[in-house]
Amino acid sequence: MESLFLLVLGNTEISTVPGISVAGATPELTKLTPPADAEYIFYEKPKIIDAIPVTPEGHPTPAIITKAARELARFPIIVIRGGTYLAPKVPHVHISDVVGRDFRKEPALPEVEDIIETARLFGEELNKEPIEELVIGESTPGGTTTAQAVLWTLGYEAKTSSASPNNPQALKEQVIKAGFERAGIRFGELSDEPIEALRQFGDPMMATVIGISLGFRKKVVLAGGTQMLAVAALLKALGESLDRFMIATTKWVVNDRSATFIETAKEIGIMSYAADLDFSRSEFKGLRDYEKGYVKEGVGAGGATWLAVKAGFSPEDVSRKVEELYKQLMNLKAASP
Amino acid sequence: MESLFLLVLGNTEISTVPGISVAGATPELTKLTPPADAEYIFYEKPKIIDAIPVTPEGHPTPAIITKAARELARFPIIVIRGGTYLAPKVPHVHISDVVGRDFRKEPALPEVEDIIETARLFGEELNKEPIEELVIGESTPGGTTTAQAVLWTLGYEAKTSSASPNNPQALKEQVIKAGFERAGIRFGELSDEPIEALRQFGDPMMATVIGISLGFRKKVVLAGGTQMLAVAALLKALGESLDRFMIATTKWVVNDRSATFIETAKEIGIMSYAADLDFSRSEFKGLRDYEKGYVKEGVGAGGATWLAVKAGFSPEDVSRKVEELYKQLMNLKAASP
Repeated sequence: MESLFLLVLGNTEISTVPGISVAGATPELTKLTPPADAEYIFYEKPKIIDAIPVTPEGHPTPAIITKAARELARFPIIVIRGGTYLAPKVPHVHISDVVGRDFRKEPALPEVEDIIETARLFGEELNKEPIEELVIGESTPGGTTTAQAVLWTLGYEAKTSSASPNNPQALKEQVIKAGFERAGIRFGELSDEPIEALRQFGDPMMATVIGISLGFRKKVVLAGGTQMLAVAALLKALGESLDRFMIATTKWVVNDRSATFIETAKEIGIMSYAADLDFSRSEFKGLRDYEKGYVKEGVGAGGATWLAVKAGFSPEDVSRKVEELYKQLMNLKAASP
Repeated sequence: MESLFLLVLGNTEISTVPGISVAGATPELTKLTPPADAEYIFYEKPKIIDAIPVTPEGHPTPAIITKAARELARFPIIVIRGGTYLAPKVPHVHISDVVGRDFRKEPALPEVEDIIETARLFGEELNKEPIEELVIGESTPGGTTTAQAVLWTLGYEAKTSSASPNNPQALKEQVIKAGFERAGIRFGELSDEPIEALRQFGDPMMATVIGISLGFRKKVVLAGGTQMLAVAALLKALGESLDRFMIATTKWVVNDRSATFIETAKEIGIMSYAADLDFSRSEFKGLRDYEKGYVKEGVGAGGATWLAVKAGFSPEDVSRKVEELYKQLMNLKAASP
C-alpha cells in the first residue's frame, strides 16, 4: 500500500502558559519546536535553532523516532504549516500562518473555516494521487490542553496525556475552566457544534488535519496520542464515519495512567495501534527516561513506526536507529565550539 | 503512468518594465498574475483579485486551458510558490517568497542556491511517492526576458516568445544588454556557470524548477514554451542528461516566427510536444485571438493538454471545455453588480 506521511505543524499561545508544556526547553522556546522538529527530519540538526527541541530536563524530541523510522523505511514526508509563529526552513505546504490564541482571553481560532477549507482542497488533490493511505503526524506544543478543552466541549470526560511524567492536569483543568467561563460554555455543550468547539478552544493543527481528512477520501492514520483523539471526536461530530480512520501512537501514551487514551478511544469508537518501542537499554539517560514517561509521543512517532513495521522493520530496529541518531547528535554537540 | 502536475509561481521585477510583459492588464497587475492563475485553477474565479488575469487588450490567461484540461482528465495539481510578491490563496508548497530583481540594476537572484536546495529536497520527497512523471508548468510574468538573458549568457542565440503578437524583441534586447553591462558579462560567458547565470539574470521559477528536477529522478515534462528552454539549457549546463526530460508546449509557441523555439530546442537537444489547440471557431474574440498570437502559452497549458490527451481526450475536447469555462466567466461578469 502506498502511504504518504504528512507532518502538520501548529502553535497555540497556550504553550507559553508556564508549566503547561514541556515541548521546549522554556515556554518561549516551545514556539520554535514545530519548525525545528520538521527541519530535524530532513537535516542533521534544525536550521531555525542550533539544537534539537528538548524538554526543560533535556529529553530529545520524538522527532528522533520519526527520523529513525523514515531513515529505515524511506517513506515520503510532506511538511504542512497548519499555523505556526515561524515558517520551517524546509519545503512545506502552506495552509496558514495564524497560531491558536489563548482561549482564556478570546476565541482560539476565528480562522477555523478558512483553514479547514484550504486544507480540504489540499486533501482533495492528494486524493487524486496514487496514494492509498495518509499518515498524519503533528508537532503542536500545548496541544494536549487544547485537545482536552475540545474533548470536554464535545462531552468526553477525557484526560489528555502530557510530555511530562507529571501530567499537569490540575493546571490544564484550571486553564480550560477559565476558557469555558470566558466563552460562557459548559461541558458537552458543543457536542453538535464541532466547528464552534474548534473556533473557541482549538488550534490550527486540529483544523488542518480535519480539513485534509475531509478532502482525502481513503485511509487516514491519525499519528498521535490524545491530541488525535480530539481530532477523531471532531470528525465524528462532523458526521464522518470513523471506519477509514485509525490512531497510531506509542505504548507510552497508551500506558499513561494520568490520561484516558484507551477509554476515550473506545468511547469515540476509533481503532488504535501502539508502537512497542523500548528505550530501557539505551546508553543515554535522555532516551532511557522515555520509559519513565518523559516525552511519550509527537511528530507522528507512533505512525512513523507503524510505517516502518509495515515495511518489514521491527520496533527494535527503530529503537536501534534512534540510538544511532542520538549518538550522532551527541558527537555533533561535543564537536561544536 | 501516474503523473503529477506542479504549477510553479514566480515573479520578477522585470515584468514591471513598461511594454515588456502583457501577462496582466497593466505592468503593476502582472505582480498578481501568478497567484490569481493558481487560484483560478481551483475556484470559479481568483480570490486575490476579482477577475482572471488578462492582457491589456482583455485576452484571458492560459490558466483557462490548464483548468479545462484538468476538469476533463482530473489530474492532481500542486501549486508551488517558487518566489512571488504575494502568496496564492490556495494550499501551496512554499519554496521562497523572494522575487527576481531587476537585473539592469543588481543581481537578479542572490538566493539562487537556497531556492534550488529547498526545491531539490521537495523533489526528493516526490521521488519516493508512487509518481512516475512530473509535469511542471509555470506562471511568471516577464519570464521570457529573464529566459532570453539566461540563454544568451549560456551561449544560445535564442529569441524567446511573448504573450503579445508583437514580440517586444527590441525592448527585451535593450534590457538584456543593460543587464550584461551592469554585470560586466558577455554573450556565452557563463556557459560553464549556470548557477551564476541564474544569480545574475534568472528568476525564482527557473531556480525552483531546476531544484525539483534535480531531486526527482524520474520523467520530467517541462510544461512551457521558450522559458522552459532556458530551464533545459541550465539543466544541461549543470551536467544533467536531458534523456528523461521533454518540453510540452503549444502550437502557438512553436509557430511563433518572432522566436526560435524549434531551433533552440534542437540546439539544446530536448524533445518537444506541441498541443494542437485551435480556438479559431470560438464564439469569443478573446479566445479567437489566440490564433493571432495573443497569449500562446503559460500556466503549463501545453503540458496540461498533454495529460488530457494521454487520458484519452482530444485537443478538440480541451478546446470545447475552454469555450465552456469562458462562457461561465462571461456570465459571472454579466451577473456581478
